[in-house]
Amino acid sequence: MTKINIERLMKNIESLGTIGENAQGGIDRALGSEADVLARRWLMEYWKERFHRETKVDAIANMWLHVENGEDRKAIVLGSHHDSVPNGGKYDGALGVLMATEVVETILEQNIKLKHPLTIVSFTGEEPNPYGISTLGSKALAGRIRKDQIRNYFHRDTLENLADGIQRLGGDIEMWEKIPGKEEIGSYLECHIEQGKRLEAMDLPVACVSVITGIYREQITVTGEANHAGTTMMECRKDALLGACEVALAVEAVLLELQDKDIVGTVGYIKNMPNEANIIPDQTTMILDVRISNEEKKLEMQHQINERVKAIEAKRGVRVHRSVILNQPAQPMSEVVIRAVSQGIRQTGLQPEQLISMAGHDASNVAAMADSGMIFVRSIDGKSHCKEEYSTPEDIEACANAMLRAVQILDEEMAE
Amino acid sequence: MTKINIERLMKNIESLGTIGENAQGGIDRALGSEADVLARRWLMEYWKERFHRETKVDAIANMWLHVENGEDRKAIVLGSHHDSVPNGGKYDGALGVLMATEVVETILEQNIKLKHPLTIVSFTGEEPNPYGISTLGSKALAGRIRKDQIRNYFHRDTLENLADGIQRLGGDIEMWEKIPGKEEIGSYLECHIEQGKRLEAMDLPVACVSVITGIYREQITVTGEANHAGTTMMECRKDALLGACEVALAVEAVLLELQDKDIVGTVGYIKNMPNEANIIPDQTTMILDVRISNEEKKLEMQHQINERVKAIEAKRGVRVHRSVILNQPAQPMSEVVIRAVSQGIRQTGLQPEQLISMAGHDASNVAAMADSGMIFVRSIDGKSHCKEEYSTPEDIEACANAMLRAVQILDEEMAE
Repeated sequence: MTKINIERLMKNIESLGTIGENAQGGIDRALGSEADVLARRWLMEYWKERFHRETKVDAIANMWLHVENGEDRKAIVLGSHHDSVPNGGKYDGALGVLMATEVVETILEQNIKLKHPLTIVSFTGEEPNPYGISTLGSKALAGRIRKDQIRNYFHRDTLENLADGIQRLGGDIEMWEKIPGKEEIGSYLECHIEQGKRLEAMDLPVACVSVITGIYREQITVTGEANHAGTTMMECRKDALLGACEVALAVEAVLLELQDKDIVGTVGYIKNMPNEANIIPDQTTMILDVRISNEEKKLEMQHQINERVKAIEAKRGVRVHRSVILNQPAQPMSEVVIRAVSQGIRQTGLQPEQLISMAGHDASNVAAMADSGMIFVRSIDGKSHCKEEYSTPEDIEACANAMLRAVQILDEEMAE
Repeated sequence: MTKINIERLMKNIESLGTIGENAQGGIDRALGSEADVLARRWLMEYWKERFHRETKVDAIANMWLHVENGEDRKAIVLGSHHDSVPNGGKYDGALGVLMATEVVETILEQNIKLKHPLTIVSFTGEEPNPYGISTLGSKALAGRIRKDQIRNYFHRDTLENLADGIQRLGGDIEMWEKIPGKEEIGSYLECHIEQGKRLEAMDLPVACVSVITGIYREQITVTGEANHAGTTMMECRKDALLGACEVALAVEAVLLELQDKDIVGTVGYIKNMPNEANIIPDQTTMILDVRISNEEKKLEMQHQINERVKAIEAKRGVRVHRSVILNQPAQPMSEVVIRAVSQGIRQTGLQPEQLISMAGHDASNVAAMADSGMIFVRSIDGKSHCKEEYSTPEDIEACANAMLRAVQILDEEMAE
């Protein structure tokens, strides 16, 4: 049975993981940073050395390494992204690009013949970044951002225009129409760390992603009445912050009552006004973020929140204004890719479980234009976006071998 | 029965109330502002015209109008402050200074002979202000701030040093030792709007203040664990913000269970970290402000909060760190002044109720050096620190007449 070279893959993870490493041992490799530039150079040089091919950088600075095989078909694309969150880890994104590289390297070394050309991709700016737009490269690919919108974004510190940043990275938004399209990309498969504890709970190293979760966000504003913190009797208060506290806890209770491990919700942001120790708050705004893929359960959740909020308004004499600021539906992965990944996992002797991805990924955008899928590798203790982020070499090896098989199955199953 | 001139008093309230009036109809008359300067000039000119005496401005720019009567005794001092909060009303502070003025004017007009000289005072910077220090003038009087500390304060916008601001207002911190002391001030009586709804609830125009409330403040920090808002299962979270919400609501419950109208508490300030919609918060800090005068109940409150916080820590896996940042004891008003005010109220035909002042006042500082007391006048709808702040001419008249009598009684009762 053909296997990938885990020593080589781990060595590459360590090498790329030194680029942008900070004093605390985390990785700072945001879109447009010097570390972004250096990581791109590392990849291009590695690909050049191993594949004897030049990297193509498209209009939005996505990096493409095409391995033609004489066949005039759409490509099987493997990849992820090489940028990181501030003080992030060395697996999120980089693992997907390097696993794609390892799988292609193995296929070439072992002379495995495929009907479809292979392509490795490393997308531009997947993570939140100082220009204020994430999954930028895959959005451009999927037509979810237009050329004329790029100039609207500026780096929050340097004020550099995003178009100029892209130029520094080797892109050129004037070449927008040359971004690869449907006619070139047949399917897309991305390996990513799970970033959660579901695989640990199932005691499995890998899983096939069935769906990328929907994201539902509400801005919730509670309005009460500002007043003197000393002279206002308890029974005369319309305290916006206490109202907001009750709303946040009510939302948590609703989510727990849904008893669905694929639904989670968070109030991560709160702004209180006037936010002075001696003034009863009159306005408190929160953002609720819910990851939910089942539309029926989303309606049930909304109904339950409505009921509880009404009771809080009545009890406290506050008004609660809620507006939906994001209602992004779940993105199912392609059936053909799910089948190939599941079979690939089974052929390595593992149980092919399916998971919902609770975070967004480039694959969610690519799914708008090509058959797309993902394979997750177990995250130790569920950690991610931090320097403690880790997956074991054994799990990574199992994942890469499953991916190697999935590519071969996909090559057989793909229509074109 | 001698009565004050309510038309004159109301006219003065309206006149002084135009100084610093903003476009919204509120008053902007912060310490050191142009309106502060103009209000001082208005008072000096009015006092000069009516009393034919020059105002003395002390080192910290407190304004004193002495009406000598040939007796070599300590003075009965009446007054309050003329500065305002941003967008405040025309009664808070100004009413006390103008009522003092009206009472003295009436005593002189009616040739009422007193054993003690009378003094009107308008204190410098009672309200929170851009230099970051409130009740400044009375603190200096009471020795609660030292000359060498004044230069540590700067205006947050103009960066003017407080000592220079005081100079602009006619003060001079180099003359610190000339601030009036115990040998000059026999007693102090301040009229102020109630700023609450207790008098409304009792259907009374005025009340005598028994105590100025103690203020107890805790900084409460809840520490959890930051994590991905999507990939972290509900049962794996240590959400600092939800912990903080439970703490804030628990504190409210404890305060309500104490069932004491003279105890109120507020969480007015909250800071959440990292405060991003898609990250579970790892640290949330709040400031709790409690107005409480009974030390036994304070201990009971602390005990109850401790118990509830322990339960929240255990339930949510968060840590709650609490530190007391202010523990200012209640300041009882002087018995002799309370008796005089109560009798004064009774002599106008009203029931002499006593109230705890739930806000701080200059009288709290003056009490450190002289017999001090306060009389409250009813606030319509409890409003204060806003342009809707209002007391009726009828209530103000009742208060001023009670004060006129209180001064005469005090004059008889005072030891020296």
